[in-house]
Amino acid sequence: MFISFEGTEGVGKSTLIASLNKALSAEHDVVLTREPGGTPLAEQIRELLLAPQQDATQQEQMSHATELLLIYAARAQHLDQVILPALSENKIVLCDRFVDASVAYQHGGRGMDKAQIDLLTNTFVAKMPDLTFWLDLPVEQGMQRAKNRGALDRFEQEKMAFFQRIQESYRQLAEQNPQRIIRLDASQCAEQLFAQALTIIQEKM
Amino acid sequence: MFISFEGTEGVGKSTLIASLNKALSAEHDVVLTREPGGTPLAEQIRELLLAPQQDATQQEQMSHATELLLIYAARAQHLDQVILPALSENKIVLCDRFVDASVAYQHGGRGMDKAQIDLLTNTFVAKMPDLTFWLDLPVEQGMQRAKNRGALDRFEQEKMAFFQRIQESYRQLAEQNPQRIIRLDASQCAEQLFAQALTIIQEKM
Repeated sequence: MFISFEGTEGVGKSTLIASLNKALSAEHDVVLTREPGGTPLAEQIRELLLAPQQDATQQEQMSHATELLLIYAARAQHLDQVILPALSENKIVLCDRFVDASVAYQHGGRGMDKAQIDLLTNTFVAKMPDLTFWLDLPVEQGMQRAKNRGALDRFEQEKMAFFQRIQESYRQLAEQNPQRIIRLDASQCAEQLFAQALTIIQEKM
Repeated sequence: MFISFEGTEGVGKSTLIASLNKALSAEHDVVLTREPGGTPLAEQIRELLLAPQQDATQQEQMSHATELLLIYAARAQHLDQVILPALSENKIVLCDRFVDASVAYQHGGRGMDKAQIDLLTNTFVAKMPDLTFWLDLPVEQGMQRAKNRGALDRFEQEKMAFFQRIQESYRQLAEQNPQRIIRLDASQCAEQLFAQALTIIQEKM
């Protein structure tokens, strides 16, 4: 079973994934992973993606297409090395962000053509999640939590309007994929969120 | 004017490009560049691509899709930052490898679906070369020259059959794109090769 977790910054994905991992590991083999990343090579690609923007005077701006293609390069490696092997061994894969994040961030956030992203997904993503949790939280609340964690990376530095567009994109994705994407109210306390997600997973299994 | 140079290992691309740069620079602004690479970020991606394979026991094999997507990520950046700006300023761009190399190496060499590569080209490559020189040399001769240069990188370590397939792929590309791709006999001496290429460029201009 392949489960992905989506949402904007500071919605509580990490906490939820850690709790689910602990609960599910009692009876199942669980693989905990994340995107971009999940393998040593894919994590190297992640470093290129998340490097804070340099001084504007000597800066090489990463093009939107480059960003998207790097994300799919990391994803192809992650699928090949981690996700597909784990699923073939009947493990449960819990993945922090997956394809929906590319639509939400690169299409919703950056304004890239959704058709280009879908084309990469259709061509290079052999397996979509069986279940996706979208942790829905007002952007202002999530950003405040993220700021409290410390330094903001390149994505987190983007303006509030950017995250509002991402949030709207997630909302559309959830609407368009009701069988796969489950919206969770991330303003609930962590215990409630966990209990709700666990119940849904158990029903799905 | 955008000119790319293609061919298997050790066919003499670098020597030819250096000579043409010298000759053309007398009357034109010339930008010398290469793929994968051509910008600081794209060169970082190149490093990931060309890193020699580690010990097989602890190795993370790069998937073919990852390799292809990294190449196109570097290419998108290279186009955005170097090639398109230079062409808009009427400079001559001399580029060591471009899209044809992806078809020859990733389709011909690795056996990836050509349709996947064409799809990435059609979606992410806004400008094809005006002229491409394919330096045609029997693979055995080129490999011998490359070996004499020193350590072989990951691509160069591949077996002879791999390069034979690349060579065949270049031959097909030249056949299919007679308007753009000019075959040069790379067994000629460097001076003859240079004179022939320069004449063709001057006619094209």
